[in-house]
Amino acid sequence: MLHRHSHDLGLEPTHMLDQALGQRLMECRRQSLRLVEPLSDEDMVVQAMDDASPAKWHLAHTTWFYEAFALQPYVANYAPYSRDFAYCFNSYYETKGERHPRPHRGLLTRPTAKAVFEYRQHVDDALSTLFESESLDPETQTTLAHILEIGINHEQQHQELLLTDILALFARQPLHPAYSTKPRPAAIHSELQNGVKWLSFRGGVSEIGHSGPGFSYDNEGPRHHVLIHPFKLADRPVTNGEWQTFISDGGYADPLLWLAEGWDVVQKNNWDAPEYWHNKDDTWHQMTLHGSIPVEPSAPVSHISYYEADAFARWAGKRLPTEFEWEVATADLAPIGNTLGNNALRPVTAASQSEDKPQQMFGDVWEWTASSYQAYPGYQAPEGALGEYNGKFMCSQYVLRGGSCVTPDGHIRPTYRNFFYPHQRWQFSGVRLADNP
Amino acid sequence: MLHRHSHDLGLEPTHMLDQALGQRLMECRRQSLRLVEPLSDEDMVVQAMDDASPAKWHLAHTTWFYEAFALQPYVANYAPYSRDFAYCFNSYYETKGERHPRPHRGLLTRPTAKAVFEYRQHVDDALSTLFESESLDPETQTTLAHILEIGINHEQQHQELLLTDILALFARQPLHPAYSTKPRPAAIHSELQNGVKWLSFRGGVSEIGHSGPGFSYDNEGPRHHVLIHPFKLADRPVTNGEWQTFISDGGYADPLLWLAEGWDVVQKNNWDAPEYWHNKDDTWHQMTLHGSIPVEPSAPVSHISYYEADAFARWAGKRLPTEFEWEVATADLAPIGNTLGNNALRPVTAASQSEDKPQQMFGDVWEWTASSYQAYPGYQAPEGALGEYNGKFMCSQYVLRGGSCVTPDGHIRPTYRNFFYPHQRWQFSGVRLADNP
Amino acid sequence: MLHRHSHDLGLEPTHMLDQALGQRLMECRRQSLRLVEPLSDEDMVVQAMDDASPAKWHLAHTTWFYEAFALQPYVANYAPYSRDFAYCFNSYYETKGERHPRPHRGLLTRPTAKAVFEYRQHVDDALSTLFESESLDPETQTTLAHILEIGINHEQQHQELLLTDILALFARQPLHPAYSTKPRPAAIHSELQNGVKWLSFRGGVSEIGHSGPGFSYDNEGPRHHVLIHPFKLADRPVTNGEWQTFISDGGYADPLLWLAEGWDVVQKNNWDAPEYWHNKDDTWHQMTLHGSIPVEPSAPVSHISYYEADAFARWAGKRLPTEFEWEVATADLAPIGNTLGNNALRPVTAASQSEDKPQQMFGDVWEWTASSYQAYPGYQAPEGALGEYNGKFMCSQYVLRGGSCVTPDGHIRPTYRNFFYPHQRWQFSGVRLADNP
Amino acid sequence: MLHRHSHDLGLEPTHMLDQALGQRLMECRRQSLRLVEPLSDEDMVVQAMDDASPAKWHLAHTTWFYEAFALQPYVANYAPYSRDFAYCFNSYYETKGERHPRPHRGLLTRPTAKAVFEYRQHVDDALSTLFESESLDPETQTTLAHILEIGINHEQQHQELLLTDILALFARQPLHPAYSTKPRPAAIHSELQNGVKWLSFRGGVSEIGHSGPGFSYDNEGPRHHVLIHPFKLADRPVTNGEWQTFISDGGYADPLLWLAEGWDVVQKNNWDAPEYWHNKDDTWHQMTLHGSIPVEPSAPVSHISYYEADAFARWAGKRLPTEFEWEVATADLAPIGNTLGNNALRPVTAASQSEDKPQQMFGDVWEWTASSYQAYPGYQAPEGALGEYNGKFMCSQYVLRGGSCVTPDGHIRPTYRNFFYPHQRWQFSGVRLADNP
Repeated sequence: MLHRHSHDLGLEPTHMLDQALGQRLMECRRQSLRLVEPLSDEDMVVQAMDDASPAKWHLAHTTWFYEAFALQPYVANYAPYSRDFAYCFNSYYETKGERHPRPHRGLLTRPTAKAVFEYRQHVDDALSTLFESESLDPETQTTLAHILEIGINHEQQHQELLLTDILALFARQPLHPAYSTKPRPAAIHSELQNGVKWLSFRGGVSEIGHSGPGFSYDNEGPRHHVLIHPFKLADRPVTNGEWQTFISDGGYADPLLWLAEGWDVVQKNNWDAPEYWHNKDDTWHQMTLHGSIPVEPSAPVSHISYYEADAFARWAGKRLPTEFEWEVATADLAPIGNTLGNNALRPVTAASQSEDKPQQMFGDVWEWTASSYQAYPGYQAPEGALGEYNGKFMCSQYVLRGGSCVTPDGHIRPTYRNFFYPHQRWQFSGVRLADNP
Repeated sequence: MLHRHSHDLGLEPTHMLDQALGQRLMECRRQSLRLVEPLSDEDMVVQAMDDASPAKWHLAHTTWFYEAFALQPYVANYAPYSRDFAYCFNSYYETKGERHPRPHRGLLTRPTAKAVFEYRQHVDDALSTLFESESLDPETQTTLAHILEIGINHEQQHQELLLTDILALFARQPLHPAYSTKPRPAAIHSELQNGVKWLSFRGGVSEIGHSGPGFSYDNEGPRHHVLIHPFKLADRPVTNGEWQTFISDGGYADPLLWLAEGWDVVQKNNWDAPEYWHNKDDTWHQMTLHGSIPVEPSAPVSHISYYEADAFARWAGKRLPTEFEWEVATADLAPIGNTLGNNALRPVTAASQSEDKPQQMFGDVWEWTASSYQAYPGYQAPEGALGEYNGKFMCSQYVLRGGSCVTPDGHIRPTYRNFFYPHQRWQFSGVRLADNP
Repeated sequence: MLHRHSHDLGLEPTHMLDQALGQRLMECRRQSLRLVEPLSDEDMVVQAMDDASPAKWHLAHTTWFYEAFALQPYVANYAPYSRDFAYCFNSYYETKGERHPRPHRGLLTRPTAKAVFEYRQHVDDALSTLFESESLDPETQTTLAHILEIGINHEQQHQELLLTDILALFARQPLHPAYSTKPRPAAIHSELQNGVKWLSFRGGVSEIGHSGPGFSYDNEGPRHHVLIHPFKLADRPVTNGEWQTFISDGGYADPLLWLAEGWDVVQKNNWDAPEYWHNKDDTWHQMTLHGSIPVEPSAPVSHISYYEADAFARWAGKRLPTEFEWEVATADLAPIGNTLGNNALRPVTAASQSEDKPQQMFGDVWEWTASSYQAYPGYQAPEGALGEYNGKFMCSQYVLRGGSCVTPDGHIRPTYRNFFYPHQRWQFSGVRLADNP
Repeated sequence: MLHRHSHDLGLEPTHMLDQALGQRLMECRRQSLRLVEPLSDEDMVVQAMDDASPAKWHLAHTTWFYEAFALQPYVANYAPYSRDFAYCFNSYYETKGERHPRPHRGLLTRPTAKAVFEYRQHVDDALSTLFESESLDPETQTTLAHILEIGINHEQQHQELLLTDILALFARQPLHPAYSTKPRPAAIHSELQNGVKWLSFRGGVSEIGHSGPGFSYDNEGPRHHVLIHPFKLADRPVTNGEWQTFISDGGYADPLLWLAEGWDVVQKNNWDAPEYWHNKDDTWHQMTLHGSIPVEPSAPVSHISYYEADAFARWAGKRLPTEFEWEVATADLAPIGNTLGNNALRPVTAASQSEDKPQQMFGDVWEWTASSYQAYPGYQAPEGALGEYNGKFMCSQYVLRGGSCVTPDGHIRPTYRNFFYPHQRWQFSGVRLADNP
């Protein structure tokens, strides 16, 4: 999952400890604080479920990350803010020492939120001085620039998780509180409800994966050739309206539509709709960051598991795209869409951009693909602390592509590989159908 | 356990809705607020484990109790403060409607602590008006006086639970915070460490259970005759020092000392000392409401399970007293001791009061007895809402007697029966040995 | 439970290694073999559930018992039949070495049933020689006689368990096979269905527990005085017909009737009738050792838990008797009834014996009492191997009295204390109501 | 896993209901009976663990398969042998009605082994008549031939499972019995222990998957193009000797070598060696179908999980091959090796066949690949009963290739895809390393 991404330490000469980087870093740090403004101290300490983390933990963990990987190794005389903090806020780095057990993150009433804010300020101050220092040799500067770049991307990932975890928490409140108290922007109603257009792709040998300048995670490389068979792809994701038809048609009650493993999960958990859907006064409602609202039929369906995506596709007589098909289909598309900066805080119907290109590939919902999360050919785990476990999550998970309505702007690209277990659905996860020619 | 006590609705003519009752009620309400003063909002929302409840929940639940049993039924036009609150803060009254599941109490970040304080004020105001009302008929006055008396006792129980639950929470913090920041009173060192005196009792037919004026729970009656065999009782509880000897002697490693069920629990949980004990720098420390402190050898051992109490007794060649022996031994003793008002907030060595009487029967630690928690002969579950489930916890639990260092003053008496499951040990539970003549 | 009974080594001078004992021993050994005659090798190896043991295991364990406690310690040059057998067939004696884990007893396809029969023969031969030996000194003879007496009683307990465990196994077979292929004796229909007679007892100080000659377990003593309050007792157990009324009246659906713990168990397991009851063609059927048969309304209800017994009593406005009340009520009654020798293999309606005395106190069903299983005053765990854990099961269980339709004849007496956990119901367990005067 | 393979109903004209097919069918049926000859009735009824099935169940289930898919649909007037048998011995076909729960298969003492043998005979007789019938129209003949072909392959799969499940059962016996009482053939010692040879492959676009005549499962097709990158492959599987080095080097204790998921499994289960390995007298022994024997250093390691295979590869600085690389490497190799007919019943060192080709690709051990078990491009689930769930196991499992020492001869080919969950290791599963060029 996002917060478990591995990190690349292959140094690129383009990394520079310049003011531009400093400004992006501080803007990222401020953005985290803005995200918790609507939260009370109580909202920040509680852990909604094992998969989620408290908001306070996200704030502290992202801060610890800079301390552990940048300040302590490379800044002379820097002392860790607190040995206890390191214990509390390390996530999973075995080489970085003992950690507080993940399912107990919600027990940490101390350090308090206030102490965490002070911790952030302390680390921010130390980070700021880096950009004014004249004593750093060029190699250290390059290394630090690279690590800070990773730190920014790492914190952006946690910004998304913070929001999905708050949604998970608020959805468990009998009071159904709204995270956002601003007026909720109306959904844009378009023709999407009325049909889907199938776009054809010819296939052939394509290059897949990241290369060139700009940040990427190591799991996006090496760039390599893949043989793609001809395929068709829906021009937009599956909508809530279509999902309601699936429900009325008995989709959740027919074992023939499901993977055996998925059917077990459906029965064990009594799933009969996406996560956060509930029936009120005979109408499907959905818990969102705006509180509980009626389901919007033309918006992309969200909060579904891989199992549900797969069952829906079988019901529809289609299939999921592979992550390679998905990536090929983004050629010539700018990686922009309904992401966090858009402030919608939920998937919404987008206006058409063009008749011949897939819509909403970026933003709105992460799209489950048929691809198991595996290493690309030639992938080598980098050496060193940050690369400790580059491949250690490459098992039993599935790749999602494209970003969501709470992904920070700029934190998405065609080669970006997100990954979750097939039963998980607390992220903004949806699906786009594919078909054979 | 305390918070599950059932309640008696047998009306006594002595119950009066007078100013004395009103003052006791308001003092009790203020006391709850004083107890949470050292807590942050975060400390108040988190649930340390399934057995415990968040402090905020205790504050709200005790308030809901007055609303549900006094204000709504007996005050014309009183509207519940909030339907959601009733759902959130009902504990287990089936006839009072649906309840928030107990293990999810720690998810309730909303209503906030602030909202709960407002709720308390609202209910306090409504309760105050009762004492000024001139429109209540005498029968209603008597009924209300009785219910408020129960409400006070109910809230006192939760005051004790609030403290034990906070200790459970703080013990799970890597930072080991102290609840009490006041200077910790020194333990009084006395001769207790050096030996125990055995007091002999002749036995015979004794009267057991509550009768007469003054409040009691229904499980303390009816008063009835019990045949007691001659026995001996230790003049004081087992101390930490004696427990350390038990540990060094391999007490936790010898299956022959344990009940079969207890041995399973010991092995499954790797118990090797009382709850909250941990070894630091080769010295036993104990997490307390003062933070982590070295174990005090002459103080009564606390936070042990029934299994441990039983194993210790077998190791010592003694046994646990029955609850009847315990009660008989309190004849002529005033029910006072190291309780909450004493502010020690932990068991401490008491100075001798008398050479021939048992010491520390009240306060310090609840003392496990050999008695399974059962109904007394002739016990009848009362009718009505408060009596809904009078006997429903009378199974598989064991009786503890005497109160603890966090029991509110006055909330203890010779006939008081507390009860917990034999594996539970987050209460201030200790043990006093008995022997045959 | 039966197979966990502890054993007394207090030697009595009356124990003699004479021919009478030898004949009883060999008859007991043959009886075990007769009980497995209707079983295939497959029936003998499988374990129906964790609480149960395979028939083969019972056969081997009872044999190992004589080997471990009589032959090895007291017979010169006796070598254990097989070290593996000792590992496989020790039940829970910690001092007798490592044991095969209880829930894995059903994995033991080897040693085969045939090997176990050979093992039995080998041990029987060795036991026989004891009675012909002239080299045993008198003290050893007395000790051996005592141990063999315990061995017989121990094997009788396992004979009952063997049958209840076979019933548990056969009840899990889709084919519902019958253990007994003999014609099933008709139930005797009597006036029992039409009403219950309440017998009054005056109470007072009574003597409880075993004393005098004849075998008993250590938990039946010491004999001591108990103060009994006046009470009434039903002249017969609750019947299946009455239980059907309880069911139709919604007994399993009303939480107000249940202990809190019991209500949890009911809901978790979807209990809506006694164990082994199932509805076929709109008629309640019951799996028995004769296969599945229609429930017989006038026979005592069987296979109920303590929780169900307690809920039924509350529904009926009565209560369970204490074990002391039960024992007092057996004064002047001979301990005979519908036990194993009767061959009914199920509870049946007995003809009235007398108008003024309780019926069916012995045989038919074990009767749950309100008494937690505790040590009697003055109880001391004996020293030595057989007494290893005399009290180790005295926790969280409840006492049942009177024996059942599969208890070996003679293996029952007024002071006999059986005990099980309150949720267990695979034994032939029923209930008789008591009331206050 | 093997017994969950899906089945193809695409009819091929080459299927004929001729004598050759009849002879293969009856030989396959006899082979199942030969495999259980060393087993007692008790060995046949017990279920070693949830993943395994009893031998009796395998015998009955494979028989039910012919009844359900061939005799009942296509033979006029054929009545099912027993409705109970269908309930007991259906494995997972939802459209074929209710099933006995999988983890309870080991409770079925009835029908007895004897009854199952009679059931087999009954069905064999009915199958035999098919080959003599003159009333079947050509289309039905072709369909039946196809179904029987599937039935043979299905039964062969279960023959392998029967042996691995017996090994799992015998490994849980304290007596460590041998399945095979014939003299155990010596392991052939060769140069394998001393080094591995790396074979280079050029890559390029290759055809993968089955086509042409001969039986295959639907998951082996459609045949399609795959782009293979240049790679190197070890000429033989990893050996026990090499695995011992991995163990001594701390392989099971270093989290950096493991997938995060794998490390959790290792710690939870205290794995420190392959399944069935145990240390006796300071020497590694291995439970086999010949009983417990010293580990043979030059034989391929077996009974390892995907996690272990992956960790070993990381430790060795190599990786697992993809299933496509594996298939490409078998070009020009005959699919023969140490399979069931060889009677070794364990992996053994093979003599070199050639210097330039991979050894032991077939037989000995199933080889874990890096490939998640997914559908091939263009795969379509066939319609109809046998195709009910063709793809329903394509999730979270990994592909193994090549067959094992207990795979029936002829039941293996280069395109054969076996699959198991990454934690499973009771099959004869090993590993062969790959590397980048």
